[in-house]
Amino acid sequence: MSRNVRIVSRQNERIREAKKLAQKKHRDATGRFCLEGVRLVEEALTASLVEELFFTERLLQSPRGRELVQRAQTSAVQVYECSEPVLEELTDTVNSQGVAAVARKPAWELQPQGLMLIADEIQDPGNMGALLRTGVGAGARTLFVVKGSVDVYSPKVVRASMGAIFHLPHQVVDRPEVLELMEKRGIALVVADLENAQDFWTAAYPQDVAVVIGNEARGVHASFRDQAALRVRIPLVGPVESLNASVAAGVLLYEILRQYRCSRPESVL
Amino acid sequence: MSRNVRIVSRQNERIREAKKLAQKKHRDATGRFCLEGVRLVEEALTASLVEELFFTERLLQSPRGRELVQRAQTSAVQVYECSEPVLEELTDTVNSQGVAAVARKPAWELQPQGLMLIADEIQDPGNMGALLRTGVGAGARTLFVVKGSVDVYSPKVVRASMGAIFHLPHQVVDRPEVLELMEKRGIALVVADLENAQDFWTAAYPQDVAVVIGNEARGVHASFRDQAALRVRIPLVGPVESLNASVAAGVLLYEILRQYRCSRPESVL
Repeated sequence: MSRNVRIVSRQNERIREAKKLAQKKHRDATGRFCLEGVRLVEEALTASLVEELFFTERLLQSPRGRELVQRAQTSAVQVYECSEPVLEELTDTVNSQGVAAVARKPAWELQPQGLMLIADEIQDPGNMGALLRTGVGAGARTLFVVKGSVDVYSPKVVRASMGAIFHLPHQVVDRPEVLELMEKRGIALVVADLENAQDFWTAAYPQDVAVVIGNEARGVHASFRDQAALRVRIPLVGPVESLNASVAAGVLLYEILRQYRCSRPESVL
Repeated sequence: MSRNVRIVSRQNERIREAKKLAQKKHRDATGRFCLEGVRLVEEALTASLVEELFFTERLLQSPRGRELVQRAQTSAVQVYECSEPVLEELTDTVNSQGVAAVARKPAWELQPQGLMLIADEIQDPGNMGALLRTGVGAGARTLFVVKGSVDVYSPKVVRASMGAIFHLPHQVVDRPEVLELMEKRGIALVVADLENAQDFWTAAYPQDVAVVIGNEARGVHASFRDQAALRVRIPLVGPVESLNASVAAGVLLYEILRQYRCSRPESVL
């Protein structure tokens, strides 16, 4: 591992540049983001998105860690061996795994078809991460992120997505823009609501369908509700006003998947 | 509102005592916990669990806030009007609603029947809160919290539960204790697993059933898996290893509720 550049100063230029990516404006300006942990960095390497890899000796204690560094060295990745205090500048978690990376944001060609998700001003990073993760799990093809939502490349979202950030095509959109796109393509919008809605089990979901997940406090914006082909209710047996946004997304997506699989066993899903 | 005791010092004894409840050992020792926000304090008042209420002038700007203070004053609640810096000692959120309270933990008589949840060393406060909230939504009767899980009375769990902490009977248990209870009562355990499992839609869930939600990193403990009557798989269409713990709980609970409602319309649920 001797051929790696070593960084022992927290003032190092690479470290300072990477650290700036904790801020959205720097991620937006550079098209890059910072991630940490063995699993996430592996996924980013597989997607050929890693530009710089930072690790400490600790990472080399595991075969998986050594393999990670070797993979980076044989790719077009700048590899830096860091002291512990230096790497701490780039990691959020209390016990980091000794590895962080700077990666380019993935670029997607969005195909508005199949099962889709629309995140309508989701604020909580944990919810946005879980939305990405659940979307990949349930076979969603696209996530539209309405402006005003938390940035999907913020460190907490990336971490909570458990790698799904590299697998679910996504794009930031204006609300009117996505509404127009859905209308033009004749794609059915699904919104969860408690009033004027049918139980979500009894609705019949078409193959091309977009599930709108609303802001944690205010719910789905009225313009989505007005255009929705399906207004569905997740029944609440006990005294809570609603479900958590990412839980509601999971409940709806897996019911749609159940219908696809159980009523149309020939489906490719 | 002039008859309220006023607190202007952060060193005030009541404030210092309330602040200690941020620590689990003080919650355990006193059987009390601290909560904040209009909605949560209303729920605690309705459950007759509030001992002390702390508010600032800001709360009185809304009719709902004034009503809250009046309700507290006509109950056996100590009411303290605080300066903003004093209340900040008791609130976690950036923009507090100007109200916090000290409440007794609810006491429950657990009835091991119906739909139940077992939280097996859940670590993340957001997940535990969502588990409580989802449990109430889906009609669960009881939550068993296996020792080693995050404390359900920690401020983040209480907040994420959105009031469900007052509605879902729960108890901290040893793992062997809950296993024995379930076996003795003949209650079917459901665990989510990817191997040797049937799709969760195809399983038939009995009326008395306990869904085990495993630790975020390690999954469900082997002893639950060994005793499980139903091992079910939540299919993962895309490349993620699993779902978020609280999302998985929501997906499973609402499938069970669907089966109860759709196949047994006479059910009381």
